[in-house]
Amino acid sequence: MRDNIDLVIFGSQGDLAKRKLLPALYRLDKADLLPDNARIASVARHQISTNIYLNQVQENLQQVIPKKEWDNKVWTRFKRRIYYIKVDFSQKKQFNHVSDWMEENRKVIFYLATPPSLYESICKHMASTGCVSENTRIVLEKPIGHDLRSSKQVNDAVGQYFSEKNIFRIDHYLGKETVQNLLALRFANRIINSQWDNKCIDHIQITAAETVGIEGRWSYYDTVGQLRDMFQNHLLQLLCMVAMEPPNSLKAEEIRAEKIKLLRALRPIGSDKVDDYVVRGQYTNGWIDGKPVVGYLEEEGAENSNSNNETFVAIKVEIDNWRWAGVPFYMRTGKRLNAKHTEIIIAYKESSHSIIADKPLDSSNKLVIRLQPNEGIELEMISKKQSLKQRLSTEKRVLNLDFHDSDSDKRVVDAYERLFLELIKGDQWLFVSREEIETSWDWCDQIIDAWNKNKSPTRLYSAGSGGPAKAEVLIESDGRSWHGQ
Amino acid sequence: MRDNIDLVIFGSQGDLAKRKLLPALYRLDKADLLPDNARIASVARHQISTNIYLNQVQENLQQVIPKKEWDNKVWTRFKRRIYYIKVDFSQKKQFNHVSDWMEENRKVIFYLATPPSLYESICKHMASTGCVSENTRIVLEKPIGHDLRSSKQVNDAVGQYFSEKNIFRIDHYLGKETVQNLLALRFANRIINSQWDNKCIDHIQITAAETVGIEGRWSYYDTVGQLRDMFQNHLLQLLCMVAMEPPNSLKAEEIRAEKIKLLRALRPIGSDKVDDYVVRGQYTNGWIDGKPVVGYLEEEGAENSNSNNETFVAIKVEIDNWRWAGVPFYMRTGKRLNAKHTEIIIAYKESSHSIIADKPLDSSNKLVIRLQPNEGIELEMISKKQSLKQRLSTEKRVLNLDFHDSDSDKRVVDAYERLFLELIKGDQWLFVSREEIETSWDWCDQIIDAWNKNKSPTRLYSAGSGGPAKAEVLIESDGRSWHGQ
Repeated sequence: MRDNIDLVIFGSQGDLAKRKLLPALYRLDKADLLPDNARIASVARHQISTNIYLNQVQENLQQVIPKKEWDNKVWTRFKRRIYYIKVDFSQKKQFNHVSDWMEENRKVIFYLATPPSLYESICKHMASTGCVSENTRIVLEKPIGHDLRSSKQVNDAVGQYFSEKNIFRIDHYLGKETVQNLLALRFANRIINSQWDNKCIDHIQITAAETVGIEGRWSYYDTVGQLRDMFQNHLLQLLCMVAMEPPNSLKAEEIRAEKIKLLRALRPIGSDKVDDYVVRGQYTNGWIDGKPVVGYLEEEGAENSNSNNETFVAIKVEIDNWRWAGVPFYMRTGKRLNAKHTEIIIAYKESSHSIIADKPLDSSNKLVIRLQPNEGIELEMISKKQSLKQRLSTEKRVLNLDFHDSDSDKRVVDAYERLFLELIKGDQWLFVSREEIETSWDWCDQIIDAWNKNKSPTRLYSAGSGGPAKAEVLIESDGRSWHGQ
Repeated sequence: MRDNIDLVIFGSQGDLAKRKLLPALYRLDKADLLPDNARIASVARHQISTNIYLNQVQENLQQVIPKKEWDNKVWTRFKRRIYYIKVDFSQKKQFNHVSDWMEENRKVIFYLATPPSLYESICKHMASTGCVSENTRIVLEKPIGHDLRSSKQVNDAVGQYFSEKNIFRIDHYLGKETVQNLLALRFANRIINSQWDNKCIDHIQITAAETVGIEGRWSYYDTVGQLRDMFQNHLLQLLCMVAMEPPNSLKAEEIRAEKIKLLRALRPIGSDKVDDYVVRGQYTNGWIDGKPVVGYLEEEGAENSNSNNETFVAIKVEIDNWRWAGVPFYMRTGKRLNAKHTEIIIAYKESSHSIIADKPLDSSNKLVIRLQPNEGIELEMISKKQSLKQRLSTEKRVLNLDFHDSDSDKRVVDAYERLFLELIKGDQWLFVSREEIETSWDWCDQIIDAWNKNKSPTRLYSAGSGGPAKAEVLIESDGRSWHGQ
């Protein structure tokens, strides 16, 4: 590729840059997928030299990347691309260091891996030091606000300097291979796409369970909670990919149009039914991987021992459109749960008539789309049991559509590698539009308002459990159950 | 099981009894699936003692059954069940040896593993020596006649002594695990059964390819040909299992009713279109497994060097009913082909609209039901290729629903084990009714009449090839191709 790309990472000393961004860029370089002339400016406020910074990067990469993937030749090439630029983000003048570094006729991408509170001032200072042209792209990490009003403020602020076509809002779930495989599965397989509706599907489950707790950010998290931190972005984006109408094409504008339509069709959950449709939970002390862990209110930095902030949320989501009327989406996410797993379950209806007496208790077909821990797709089918004893007895069999089958040596590419590639190409299909974010906030805000109005209680659950019992009731009162339970 | 069962095998010195029947009975005994008091009379005209016969059986079993399956304890139990009875089938009086052996209050099953020409006289002599009660069951092997008229004669002759509910006509394809798994697949999986029609399926293929030639029975085979020898029975039975309407239940009468309806809906192929819809072939010399083999007309025992008898037949079958109108069934069977394989291919339609540019040439979903060489079921799906280079490129992936997955040590049970079990239970669901046989003959007879009228040519193909080129044209002129080619 001969594009002249300049990538400027603000917040290059942060956790995201270290754990995700630089490793992804190294791997793209190794795969010959970075433009030959691509340059990377790592911007932060520490006063260090590029050489010292490069030593830090090398050390960090060698921690993150498995030894067999490390290649000194690639590193030699990669490190020549990298420049360290010292900028105190509150000092407009220091942004001149960035403009000095920039050259004519290069495509510029600013990547804001900083706290969102800095977005506006960084944009403003960059613009005023002449760093922003009409083709400059900007990348924003979540959260974009904490409700509709504040997200509009962020979008307005950034929008003063960048047009929507140049704003790339990251939801790294969209970069995951499995999410794209979900698109291939839905849109390239007739036997799947002809049954993707309320005539064939009984219900859908989306679960994003974490084992981690608050990880030292109690005072921030306590003002946010799991609905804002995980549900408003990742879970609703997964919902969009699962439930949106088939787009006319895979172009960004077509996909975005369908996602927005879907988000607008989410049935609002007001105070009259929030306590039936939404379960809030908060973890108490318990055990994770055989080790005792403290409860949310005893975490380091916990400032309010009466906080009823939720660390778990489960919602029965209904969609008011032609395809999904009558199909509930049971969605849940929480911290300090018994296992780290993210999966989407498509539960098909049972056959209308049954002529095989000996069959498993739950004999419906299921499509399992697993994002974590091992990305992959499985189809649960009913098959003849190999047994002479019964006339025709059946059992559940799982068909694997794992990525690993075709070439067991290949690692699954990380979401950020895919997202960087699309970013370099300027293709927004895996990024989130302003309207999506704001429509998502609008729907979530109603739930939060209803909680406040009702003073909705937070149900306690032990760390290491499957969440509050009320979340089981949410689905079991409909005669269904969470997958794998 | 406490049933007192007496099984009388006529033709016990024949190939079928040695290769299939006695090994199946041994294995059922080993699996504790034979009734405790079951006795087996092996009837043939050789003058030998039971002891000598038992030595022959042991020797034969040890050849057929893998060493690790052999169990001396089982053999000791099994051989006590066996009696050898010498009967010359043309001598009515000698049938008294059978009636002498029989005891009161036992369920009797006569298994005719003899040439069909003997069926009538065996039935008659058994009846006249008092061996037949109203509950005596009889098992008939194919062929039941060589056309509608002769099959009616056989059925009438046997029907004088046995009622239809006691006549068990074997088509061993129905005993295969995969055929029963096809039923489980069709009727226990909503995602399969909701798409089993002309709205979703483009076409279906049924192939039964053999590598063997005539195997020393030229003079018989030359009067029969592949249409009568394989197509009229095995291929049409497979077609029934694939295409019949879902029965009300798995009871024999319900399944038979649907099979007959299906056979009656086969569109007749008359002389006006037989040469477009049917391809006859005959093998010439060639190579099988790296060894030279002679052509059909040079086989040992070939009496007519001008014979245009077919050793291969391919037919485009159309079904005139609501479910299958417009869905062609391409069916073929032949001898001396390049590989031994029997499979059913369900080829789904392509999606109505395609939004993924990079996909395999043939990107339709396919369900592959393989009866030989390795029984199993596969689903061909389109999945994302794990590649960063393209935006969303896809490839074909095969999902296995093999029996071997669940317990890799288990052998697949042989068709005759299953059929013996159903026979002992008196369940006719895997046996062929008189009406099915006669309806099948009726349809095949029209093709043979049309051949005779048109003097339809036999296309030559080299032994070890895929059959005559005309069989490719049959399917390719419709814009389709045989699976795996």
